[in-house]
Amino acid sequence: MHESRGHDDGRGGTGAATAFVPGHVTAFFSAHARPDDPAAAGSRGAGVALSDGVRVTVADDGGGSAPGVVDFDGERVAVDPVGRVLDGLGVPGATVAATSDLPLGTGFGVSGALALGTAIAGNAAAGTTRSENDLVELAHVAEVEAGTGLGDVVAQARGGVPVRLEPGAPGAGGRLDGVPIRPRVEYVAFGELSTAEVLAGDTAALSAAGAAALSDLRAAPTGPRLLGLARRFAREADLLVPEVESALAAVAEAGGEAAMAMLGRSVFGFGTALSDAGYEASVCRTHAAGATLVDADAGSDSP
Amino acid sequence: MHESRGHDDGRGGTGAATAFVPGHVTAFFSAHARPDDPAAAGSRGAGVALSDGVRVTVADDGGGSAPGVVDFDGERVAVDPVGRVLDGLGVPGATVAATSDLPLGTGFGVSGALALGTAIAGNAAAGTTRSENDLVELAHVAEVEAGTGLGDVVAQARGGVPVRLEPGAPGAGGRLDGVPIRPRVEYVAFGELSTAEVLAGDTAALSAAGAAALSDLRAAPTGPRLLGLARRFAREADLLVPEVESALAAVAEAGGEAAMAMLGRSVFGFGTALSDAGYEASVCRTHAAGATLVDADAGSDSP
Repeated sequence: MHESRGHDDGRGGTGAATAFVPGHVTAFFSAHARPDDPAAAGSRGAGVALSDGVRVTVADDGGGSAPGVVDFDGERVAVDPVGRVLDGLGVPGATVAATSDLPLGTGFGVSGALALGTAIAGNAAAGTTRSENDLVELAHVAEVEAGTGLGDVVAQARGGVPVRLEPGAPGAGGRLDGVPIRPRVEYVAFGELSTAEVLAGDTAALSAAGAAALSDLRAAPTGPRLLGLARRFAREADLLVPEVESALAAVAEAGGEAAMAMLGRSVFGFGTALSDAGYEASVCRTHAAGATLVDADAGSDSP
Repeated sequence: MHESRGHDDGRGGTGAATAFVPGHVTAFFSAHARPDDPAAAGSRGAGVALSDGVRVTVADDGGGSAPGVVDFDGERVAVDPVGRVLDGLGVPGATVAATSDLPLGTGFGVSGALALGTAIAGNAAAGTTRSENDLVELAHVAEVEAGTGLGDVVAQARGGVPVRLEPGAPGAGGRLDGVPIRPRVEYVAFGELSTAEVLAGDTAALSAAGAAALSDLRAAPTGPRLLGLARRFAREADLLVPEVESALAAVAEAGGEAAMAMLGRSVFGFGTALSDAGYEASVCRTHAAGATLVDADAGSDSP
């Protein structure tokens, strides 16, 4: 893809550029609203960045149709945060096209990935010379304001197995740690669960459960503990759905470790947890890197 | 390598584990001593994480010989920070073996990589369940106390093109940003330059030059500006050596962009800068990910 070459020349935009953003499943979280300051709003919690992710190409060609409308795997989809990011970069008319292995709305951070990928690729395409922290903040604020997510963007900008110690963008109080593991990941998506709806409800019990889980994870950040705390969180926050409950029971019976992806009707596990339990699971790896421009020279989607 | 499997089981040590740590060239820096608090000491500045790096295997077998002695590409080498890291993990007798494309002592962050790789692999091998921030702090403090480096470890833990906004480990005030570029990198190493010697000297002029460069980079974080500021820093800090000076002149004549690697008798450039100028350069990529356990399942050195 010749249009995305030369994004490192810094002498203005390249016209078009592509970014890869890992998927992200949240294991547990607590919500932290800040109506006065969306950059400082967000969530605490933990999750896993996935090598299955979203590839976002932004073309600064003024050819965009309706604001925030994205070509997602060939379908025209309205993604509110994407329009906000393009506005923030000053290129509201840019065209955004994305391809992904992941389904929208099922707890894999696709909307966060679209926002962050648009920020990173859009910056290179338009030559707006923002820093990475600035681009993360732009995408994070877009997600928070759209009500589509609280913690995916900062986690997807980091990669690995991110632990969100303090909510918010990097320059607005946000602080991250990580669990030093890189497991193989299996997942199954049963269907959508509205993030906006859950976040708009009473989140007090959910946040208490999330805070307790974070504290227990920090005492010994390991893989099995992450998944065990995620299961406890899903029960305590009353978010379990029947398909997920059956899958978790089947995995436990097979001797594996899995949890529900927040917020979606989805399960994820480490190693061969889901296939051992008889599920036809998608398979990927923990993605060590955060979101990044795709290096056209390296010829790889997953730098 | 079967011994490194199962590092994600969290049920105690795996006996042996392997980590990959990207190399790191510093473009410019300012030194910030904190004799009272080595975790908060460090440097501000910017550099590039390299896909050429160091692969470190730690075996918690009690078979270590002298403290801090590492098998580095088959040679027995004493690396002070490595001994400190093993002490910090409580496994002073562990064996450390490393392989690398990079030469020691020439400005590619090999000693930082050995310290950080020992921390990450040692934690998995010994089952000490530290968080990633804790492991970065352990390696950072070891480098600072040994006098072998100030900023490589935190940069190598992040990956990409790290900008060190505030000195220190993640939990001790350290703050990072990044330049959103992922260039191909070429480099040539002419020989060693003692980090310890330079850092033990008068660093006031150097730090003033580094602070000015950081401020100018933050105003527009792009690739050409990073290298231009690095060249200005090398002149102002009076660190240029003749081989590097000739290489920079040759690259400029050929229309490319390169800079001196701090601290080594080495040059690095983006794209084909050095080969265009007639140098037989080593070639690698910007490494998007920070240091990480090698996923034995994925069968790749460079996760």
